[in-house]
Amino acid sequence: MWHGRFSTPTADLLLRYSESISFDWRLWRHDIEGSIAHSAALEAAGLITHAEREQIVAGLREIGAEIEAGKFEFKVELEDIHMNIERELTRRIGDAGAKLHTARSRNDQVALDLRLFLRAECDAISVLVRDLQRSLVTLGDANRSVIIPGYTHLQRAQPVFFAHHLLAYVEMLDRDAGRIADARKRLNVLPLGSGAIAGSTIVLDRELVARLLDFPAVTQNSMDAVSDRDFAVEVLAALALIAVHLSRLSEDVILWCSAEFGFVTLSDAYTTGSSLMPQKKNPDAAELTRGKAGRVVGAVVSLLTTLKGLPLTYNRDMQEDKEPVFNAVDTVKAMLEVIAGMLREARVNAAACAAAVSDPMLLATDLADYLVRRGVPFRQAHEHVGRAVALCAEHLCSLPEIALPDYQAISPAFAADLYEVFDLSRAMSARKAIGAPSPENIAAQLTRWRTLLGAA
Amino acid sequence: MWHGRFSTPTADLLLRYSESISFDWRLWRHDIEGSIAHSAALEAAGLITHAEREQIVAGLREIGAEIEAGKFEFKVELEDIHMNIERELTRRIGDAGAKLHTARSRNDQVALDLRLFLRAECDAISVLVRDLQRSLVTLGDANRSVIIPGYTHLQRAQPVFFAHHLLAYVEMLDRDAGRIADARKRLNVLPLGSGAIAGSTIVLDRELVARLLDFPAVTQNSMDAVSDRDFAVEVLAALALIAVHLSRLSEDVILWCSAEFGFVTLSDAYTTGSSLMPQKKNPDAAELTRGKAGRVVGAVVSLLTTLKGLPLTYNRDMQEDKEPVFNAVDTVKAMLEVIAGMLREARVNAAACAAAVSDPMLLATDLADYLVRRGVPFRQAHEHVGRAVALCAEHLCSLPEIALPDYQAISPAFAADLYEVFDLSRAMSARKAIGAPSPENIAAQLTRWRTLLGAA
Amino acid sequence: MWHGRFSTPTADLLLRYSESISFDWRLWRHDIEGSIAHSAALEAAGLITHAEREQIVAGLREIGAEIEAGKFEFKVELEDIHMNIERELTRRIGDAGAKLHTARSRNDQVALDLRLFLRAECDAISVLVRDLQRSLVTLGDANRSVIIPGYTHLQRAQPVFFAHHLLAYVEMLDRDAGRIADARKRLNVLPLGSGAIAGSTIVLDRELVARLLDFPAVTQNSMDAVSDRDFAVEVLAALALIAVHLSRLSEDVILWCSAEFGFVTLSDAYTTGSSLMPQKKNPDAAELTRGKAGRVVGAVVSLLTTLKGLPLTYNRDMQEDKEPVFNAVDTVKAMLEVIAGMLREARVNAAACAAAVSDPMLLATDLADYLVRRGVPFRQAHEHVGRAVALCAEHLCSLPEIALPDYQAISPAFAADLYEVFDLSRAMSARKAIGAPSPENIAAQLTRWRTLLGAA
Amino acid sequence: MWHGRFSTPTADLLLRYSESISFDWRLWRHDIEGSIAHSAALEAAGLITHAEREQIVAGLREIGAEIEAGKFEFKVELEDIHMNIERELTRRIGDAGAKLHTARSRNDQVALDLRLFLRAECDAISVLVRDLQRSLVTLGDANRSVIIPGYTHLQRAQPVFFAHHLLAYVEMLDRDAGRIADARKRLNVLPLGSGAIAGSTIVLDRELVARLLDFPAVTQNSMDAVSDRDFAVEVLAALALIAVHLSRLSEDVILWCSAEFGFVTLSDAYTTGSSLMPQKKNPDAAELTRGKAGRVVGAVVSLLTTLKGLPLTYNRDMQEDKEPVFNAVDTVKAMLEVIAGMLREARVNAAACAAAVSDPMLLATDLADYLVRRGVPFRQAHEHVGRAVALCAEHLCSLPEIALPDYQAISPAFAADLYEVFDLSRAMSARKAIGAPSPENIAAQLTRWRTLLGAA
Repeated sequence: MWHGRFSTPTADLLLRYSESISFDWRLWRHDIEGSIAHSAALEAAGLITHAEREQIVAGLREIGAEIEAGKFEFKVELEDIHMNIERELTRRIGDAGAKLHTARSRNDQVALDLRLFLRAECDAISVLVRDLQRSLVTLGDANRSVIIPGYTHLQRAQPVFFAHHLLAYVEMLDRDAGRIADARKRLNVLPLGSGAIAGSTIVLDRELVARLLDFPAVTQNSMDAVSDRDFAVEVLAALALIAVHLSRLSEDVILWCSAEFGFVTLSDAYTTGSSLMPQKKNPDAAELTRGKAGRVVGAVVSLLTTLKGLPLTYNRDMQEDKEPVFNAVDTVKAMLEVIAGMLREARVNAAACAAAVSDPMLLATDLADYLVRRGVPFRQAHEHVGRAVALCAEHLCSLPEIALPDYQAISPAFAADLYEVFDLSRAMSARKAIGAPSPENIAAQLTRWRTLLGAA
Repeated sequence: MWHGRFSTPTADLLLRYSESISFDWRLWRHDIEGSIAHSAALEAAGLITHAEREQIVAGLREIGAEIEAGKFEFKVELEDIHMNIERELTRRIGDAGAKLHTARSRNDQVALDLRLFLRAECDAISVLVRDLQRSLVTLGDANRSVIIPGYTHLQRAQPVFFAHHLLAYVEMLDRDAGRIADARKRLNVLPLGSGAIAGSTIVLDRELVARLLDFPAVTQNSMDAVSDRDFAVEVLAALALIAVHLSRLSEDVILWCSAEFGFVTLSDAYTTGSSLMPQKKNPDAAELTRGKAGRVVGAVVSLLTTLKGLPLTYNRDMQEDKEPVFNAVDTVKAMLEVIAGMLREARVNAAACAAAVSDPMLLATDLADYLVRRGVPFRQAHEHVGRAVALCAEHLCSLPEIALPDYQAISPAFAADLYEVFDLSRAMSARKAIGAPSPENIAAQLTRWRTLLGAA
Repeated sequence: MWHGRFSTPTADLLLRYSESISFDWRLWRHDIEGSIAHSAALEAAGLITHAEREQIVAGLREIGAEIEAGKFEFKVELEDIHMNIERELTRRIGDAGAKLHTARSRNDQVALDLRLFLRAECDAISVLVRDLQRSLVTLGDANRSVIIPGYTHLQRAQPVFFAHHLLAYVEMLDRDAGRIADARKRLNVLPLGSGAIAGSTIVLDRELVARLLDFPAVTQNSMDAVSDRDFAVEVLAALALIAVHLSRLSEDVILWCSAEFGFVTLSDAYTTGSSLMPQKKNPDAAELTRGKAGRVVGAVVSLLTTLKGLPLTYNRDMQEDKEPVFNAVDTVKAMLEVIAGMLREARVNAAACAAAVSDPMLLATDLADYLVRRGVPFRQAHEHVGRAVALCAEHLCSLPEIALPDYQAISPAFAADLYEVFDLSRAMSARKAIGAPSPENIAAQLTRWRTLLGAA
Repeated sequence: MWHGRFSTPTADLLLRYSESISFDWRLWRHDIEGSIAHSAALEAAGLITHAEREQIVAGLREIGAEIEAGKFEFKVELEDIHMNIERELTRRIGDAGAKLHTARSRNDQVALDLRLFLRAECDAISVLVRDLQRSLVTLGDANRSVIIPGYTHLQRAQPVFFAHHLLAYVEMLDRDAGRIADARKRLNVLPLGSGAIAGSTIVLDRELVARLLDFPAVTQNSMDAVSDRDFAVEVLAALALIAVHLSRLSEDVILWCSAEFGFVTLSDAYTTGSSLMPQKKNPDAAELTRGKAGRVVGAVVSLLTTLKGLPLTYNRDMQEDKEPVFNAVDTVKAMLEVIAGMLREARVNAAACAAAVSDPMLLATDLADYLVRRGVPFRQAHEHVGRAVALCAEHLCSLPEIALPDYQAISPAFAADLYEVFDLSRAMSARKAIGAPSPENIAAQLTRWRTLLGAA
């Protein structure tokens, strides 16, 4: 297809090294879709007849059907998906096929295919993000009265509703969906018609092609269009952040499933055992998800490093874009799906949660707030309660067990009603500010998200 | 400030390890701004009097003025910018200062400060992106008749206007500006009022604070608000892509400045010499810019790796967010500024460009297009011209030097008018499709960008 | 120093962008050391007199003393440490100073300085690695009878000595020391004398210089010598792995310090409190260490990405080597020191450990081994014990609580002596293979390491 | 194989997510090798009979032969290579197969398999590194009289032999081989016998296994042995540096093949054409190699990020080690092979090299050295020659074209013999120091390497 000027054939070694058909065959649907639209422009420009266009479209559809059915034989010596399809088309329909590549290069063709692929995947990922949000909301809703210790530094900090903890991830995923939507918006521009680098002396109607392929805009600079992989980097960066979010959620789940925390039990269906230790039931879904974050971060690095320092325009280095993109897309989709499934079958151990949250130290800050309400500047209130905590450590007791006189020895601002602070239910109700975990806020947030997500 | 429950002081080793004042002092302006707004909410909630608030505001402004003047002494034992300012405020104004930290934690405070910092930096970076676009447009405009070889695979491909090459970067930078704007939009949400993790039993008006700090929205989940560094990752990812774009532009400039290409001469002001070799004039600005892309990619990796696998909510690991953010922001700003400056003083060598672009091989595709217009299917036309190229290689001649009969021996579709193809001016004019480098398109693009950018 | 051919001065913008004195001043000691050795070669070649050499050496020593005392003023317009020192030397001693740069370039000079720096730092890091190993051994030794659950998948797996867990890190650190030693060996080669790229027409005795600077070898290719940053990458990669090891140890410590695990209490000196929550005592040293792993991984990426695709030989991009190297070296040294300090003051909670390890599920595998010893193929033994575990889950009991007939209903191979399996002390003693945690093995390992490390 | 305690089967979603057989089937040979050795220890311990061992060995060899012949059917529901082989073995030979997993876990088994795999790959990579060195030496030798400009900052710096440039890469690759050898040394330790985490109550002779598998040592801590992936990280880091070296060599080749440099012509067999532009002959092998460096850097990041912050001991995250390792190993092997092949068929264009190196500016430093030999301190000599260079720029002439009086107006130290400096052959001969490119040095280096590498 390009050997006119060459006298010796490509070395086998190079052929195997440079072929991309072993992975870019995945783009077949988009490649065909793009060629069908391109043929419309060729017809409109009078470069092919209507009959030729019909031959092309029918031939491509036939090839597409065979690929879908697993009956199409891809050939490594044809290098990539573009040549595999074009060559087979020409074998079937003759000259009309040989005309298809007019005013087109693989450079703009692959840019098109990859954009079409990522546009579809952005949509698929958004659906999965929403599904996972739904799982989180449902699990939170089903356990809406469960309170657990909230942790900072993995030390017990303050009590929070279990649902509040889950809703934090719903917020993160919402930003993820926003980033995916923004990336989709920016990649939704037609590059086809840019040729190899400088368009063509044969002028096609790019806006017609854009309309057919549902692109709201066309690229404005042919050199940029064939050099640009921004859209892939941007999607990968958004995926890396999703992966990091899921790694954090996984860490939480792994902790909760430990014998020591015991807040959550995963179903047998979402855990695995040990080949050696008969008692083991391991949260593999969560561990693998945490681990796979490394892979997605690696994918961003791969592509950024590959692109770094490349002169304009297309360089073959850029063929290295597809594998990290495919890998990261597949990985993140699976991560989202598995975590959603795992959560749907998870069981919350209310008793273990209740035991953990009964730790009165979780309300030490509330005690400081009590002093503030009685006029003590916060910084001193903090210091006073800190001294009460030290007393507990010394006497191996808990804050409600310190006697009033001992409190008053620390600060005269303490009064008998201080012990009311340790009423957990009251403590939760007091957290009314926007974003804080009062029962009313949690209920409202669950409702808001159920509505937004259309959860049953 | 938190030693109430502690009996021994912090080890010096840990103090030096954990302090952040040596780098987070940069946030002072935002920290003060945030505290002033927070004090408004404290007053509104009746937790401080109006007079106390005035003391706080005046005290903070005084401290701010001293920091700005370089007269404020930061103390490592006060750990961070928040405590350095709060402690000094309390030293100056007493109890009112000790009340400032009511219903606030350093967790939501630092989240606020970093968002304010990045919001301002996003704006500053956008300005610099536009400045660089302006430099590119101006340089292109000043050399709008210069044609150079366009390269793919660093092999001469097709002729393009020098301005077209520069405009490719203008397009890239436009997407960069879009990403920065989207990141800014997503980070522009008030986290303050989330407390350490679970809000507070002391309820403040967060929307008042948001209005004062010009945030259009407030965070809806306190646990998310103190755990979230998405905004930093998103900005870093956008910066990494800017850095990669600039590394590519730098590579082009380095090539153009080589003795072998010779298309561009940089000014003495933007080059440096060698300590050993007296003749050297090196494009250091471009090389450093290309090199600094590594640093910015490293910054994204640092933060993603740090965040990976952290359980909710705040963990001290997250203090590691600031240095990569500061470093990447400073680096990318300097890169943008230096490249813009370098281009403003660059000189295009029209003669060298003309010599390079006179290579008729650059029009081999046009010759194939010629055959297409005479009815030859493109794939065969490509093959025919490929054979003509092989003939050139064999006879060490150029395409226009092949005699007509030799062309016709390859394909009877060649006719005497084939030689018109090698008229460069005609060849450029033919590239009329959207995005292609016809003179009219280039002029239109230069005008479009001059207008959008408000360049003189 | 290189402006002979330049007519306009360097732009301020470029000067600030390209200067390295703000960070490479750290190399002053090595730069002086290298120049003193170089001057010996100049004298040996007759290029300077003995008196001139004495002037140079005295001048450099004087400058060194001033830098050390903080009295030397570095100038940005002199760009880097090399020029700052050379220029000042010449200002002081005149012509002899102006002769120093004969047959030398900053390219080979900086390669030398950075190697000298890293050679010294490799030694310093090795000492710190050994110190941390010593802390681990000491802590293990002091708690040598403490048994804890060993975890896989953060699920309780089998009992191990606490010391065994710590000794796992001693092994990791030993490999780290090995990698540092190998990197040191490979970087310990003199590059000076390679000039800018092609040596010099003035021939110096490089082996003399190597002897003076204690290098066992000299580089054999001048182009490689000035292009090579392998040694920096190799050290960074070794540091990244140290950092990852410490992040894992930190994670373990953070878990152990949680209320839920409670195996370890850190001293007040190595923890910090909360600005808001008076009860908090956070393992910040461990968290920061875990977080800093991201920074060191980022440093490797930065340098690899910077070097990727650079043509030979020296390119200014390579100036970007120093900051990641300095940052990673400082970071890892601090990490090692802080973790060693933290462990030296950590206290093991024997009761909490004993409670956790009393879980009989930890010996489920031993029960399967019991069946194996009674002739049951392991895969069936595993299945049988698995069924006993399921029985426990159903009846909410523990393995020793299942009655013999119930065991025998699962497999007739169970006999009355099965309950002896649950004797923890016996279970530990049985783990005698090399590397397994029998008390004898642990004692032997502690002794081995104490001897190797020279710990008291 | 571990379902004893489970009541519901694994979810399909999790099965597909957690299976590794789709990629770890590659370890089959090592898995079988390891099992054969393990069975020897079982026999030695009296846990299986000699006849059982023979059954096991024969069964495993049969399975191995079927896998090699592509006739073995791997089953996803058996998760990994270990279970696929063990289960099939037991299906074939019954109880003896069910005994094989005694005192072994998949945790130590996979650690063994991966070490065996990497040990073999280290050897294979070393061979390829040496092959590439041989290609470089051969190409250098065949063109040993060719001189080209050496570049710093991609500006012409000083003349060097083309062979000298190639030998720089030979040096880099030598260090690469050293790193691979060191990594191999450190990974060459037997982990088998560590069980899941704590060895086993069934004691096997690990040193027997080590001898059978040719390991000079056994791991000394069972927890470390199952948690450790240092060996994989170390190999990946070494591969990343090889990849970066090859990216630099590729960049050089791409430059040399450009129309502008023209120093080298690649064979048709190692280049490819364009689907659109008939004249193109692109150095794809070099471009892909440069691009693939990104992939290998990404692999290091993936694994480091995955390991970061994992608690001891085995966590399922670690399953994410294999794909980056396989991918990086395959990639770097292909890179080495393709570049060696490409160089073997490359042709040096002596005329283009001679034209480029005739630029007298390349000898400006020699002219400064001339002044030094006439007693001018180097720093002044540099300044004088710099002024001569400026004169050239002004008068558009070259250094040898400046008349003697004009030189003497700059410095009286110039004399009539200055013009001899511009004799290139003399200039090369003068570069005699170790590592510098005198013809004698180059010849000696070529000989040294030919001998070391055993090249014909």
